[in-house]
Amino acid sequence: MPELTHPRSERVRSVRALAGRSVRERRGKFLVEGPQGVREVVRFRPEQVQEVVLTPEAASRYAEVLDAAQAAGLTVRTGTPEVLLAMSPDAQGILAVADVWDTAGTALPAHPRLVAVLSTVRDPGNAGAVIRAADAAGADAVILAGESVDPFNPKVVRSTAGSLFHLPVLRAPDLDEVLGRLRSVGCAVLAADGTAPHDLDDLLDRAAAGGPEDAGGGPDLRAPTAWLFGNEAHGLSEEELLAADAAVRVPLRGAAESLNLATAAAVCLYASARAQR
Amino acid sequence: MPELTHPRSERVRSVRALAGRSVRERRGKFLVEGPQGVREVVRFRPEQVQEVVLTPEAASRYAEVLDAAQAAGLTVRTGTPEVLLAMSPDAQGILAVADVWDTAGTALPAHPRLVAVLSTVRDPGNAGAVIRAADAAGADAVILAGESVDPFNPKVVRSTAGSLFHLPVLRAPDLDEVLGRLRSVGCAVLAADGTAPHDLDDLLDRAAAGGPEDAGGGPDLRAPTAWLFGNEAHGLSEEELLAADAAVRVPLRGAAESLNLATAAAVCLYASARAQR
Repeated sequence: MPELTHPRSERVRSVRALAGRSVRERRGKFLVEGPQGVREVVRFRPEQVQEVVLTPEAASRYAEVLDAAQAAGLTVRTGTPEVLLAMSPDAQGILAVADVWDTAGTALPAHPRLVAVLSTVRDPGNAGAVIRAADAAGADAVILAGESVDPFNPKVVRSTAGSLFHLPVLRAPDLDEVLGRLRSVGCAVLAADGTAPHDLDDLLDRAAAGGPEDAGGGPDLRAPTAWLFGNEAHGLSEEELLAADAAVRVPLRGAAESLNLATAAAVCLYASARAQR
Repeated sequence: MPELTHPRSERVRSVRALAGRSVRERRGKFLVEGPQGVREVVRFRPEQVQEVVLTPEAASRYAEVLDAAQAAGLTVRTGTPEVLLAMSPDAQGILAVADVWDTAGTALPAHPRLVAVLSTVRDPGNAGAVIRAADAAGADAVILAGESVDPFNPKVVRSTAGSLFHLPVLRAPDLDEVLGRLRSVGCAVLAADGTAPHDLDDLLDRAAAGGPEDAGGGPDLRAPTAWLFGNEAHGLSEEELLAADAAVRVPLRGAAESLNLATAAAVCLYASARAQR
């Protein structure tokens, strides 16, 4: 018999309320929904997990997640399908409540090679997809700068598919300040912009040709790089472009005017990862 | 004074109903929402446009779209903001009603160099983002195979940001049949799969080294290629993998288990475009 059986209980409502930013900020907790996210937070950030809640069916279907949670000494509760659905329509029978961590105070890695900086990105699906792509490309950190979306927004968490727990994700309200910090640890700041003078393929050719780092023709993709990506609808402002060391465009071969943010970021980050091998 | 002033009129309801697949199929019409989509359908597929509807404010803000529609001899009607909002919550003051075209009967290009095939892709945002990335990478066609999402679904149309009108987008219920057709016009079929034996970066290295097409070590990215991408949640099935000539993985460097469909597709399509330059 599941422990939690009342979909309208105070406990259920308090979990559901974590969908709202102000509740998350006041209580310092957030929601991780679905088997993949719960598995990854248990594996990579167990010290943040307050409890795991799942249905009996999820307990048997995702037995390895349950085992890992119990092995880590975490609190696990069972609930009826109605309780899980009331806690979150996107839980697929399993969720975790976790403590947020200090994303503003998180330090940058000492010697980053590849960093993604999102400036004023509002769309949670795009932000999450960039965090996931940055993880896959082997980036050392992702920075949400300016008035960007909350990384603990449930849709961001879901879209990262666990990558939120794999690499440092920082918040930096002041873009100039964080770009200064990135430069101080050796990164060149490259703005991704559809109308930029440098073509990503040309830079890849030059990196593959293996010339000296300071050969003419634009930035060296082999060097430590922080990519700067702008808002999903408007791109980078003039001011943001000026804050970068150089601007680079992903080549557009068809009639498309632009790429969406997450796909442009994936192409840029994979190009850097390739050049840095 | 706008022509259309009654948000609950029969005409308004008949436009709004195009959000539903069965209504689109019965009436053979679909909705294009927002200034970018309307501009591109007017520019690239004017013969499909039945009418453009916009608010007086949109008519002045997007004057170049209005001019292009009038220059093409299209029917343009003005409506109040309430009418536009009742027709579609995503129109931003401007929409077009267009005739669908025969995506099942559309012929493949005679000598395609790069094609994206989506098998059983259901998520409209992902499908639209792949069509947009394929356009940007210079692909010759996109094929929605099997039980994939309807390309005239409003969210697909919006996510393509106009690319739906730039390149042939075909529907093919039978995956094997369309892969056979692609082979008959010279394409190798490469399945994108996270656990595949061939690494995309290795294939790019080999293409850049410029050896003969039939040198060992996997498929040649310089050759005409049809990429096969699977369902956004489950990837490609065993059967779908067997239908391809080779399987290729995008390298995963961090702790990510996979990329999302649209970002994986963008990385693969851009790799081919780069190798084929």
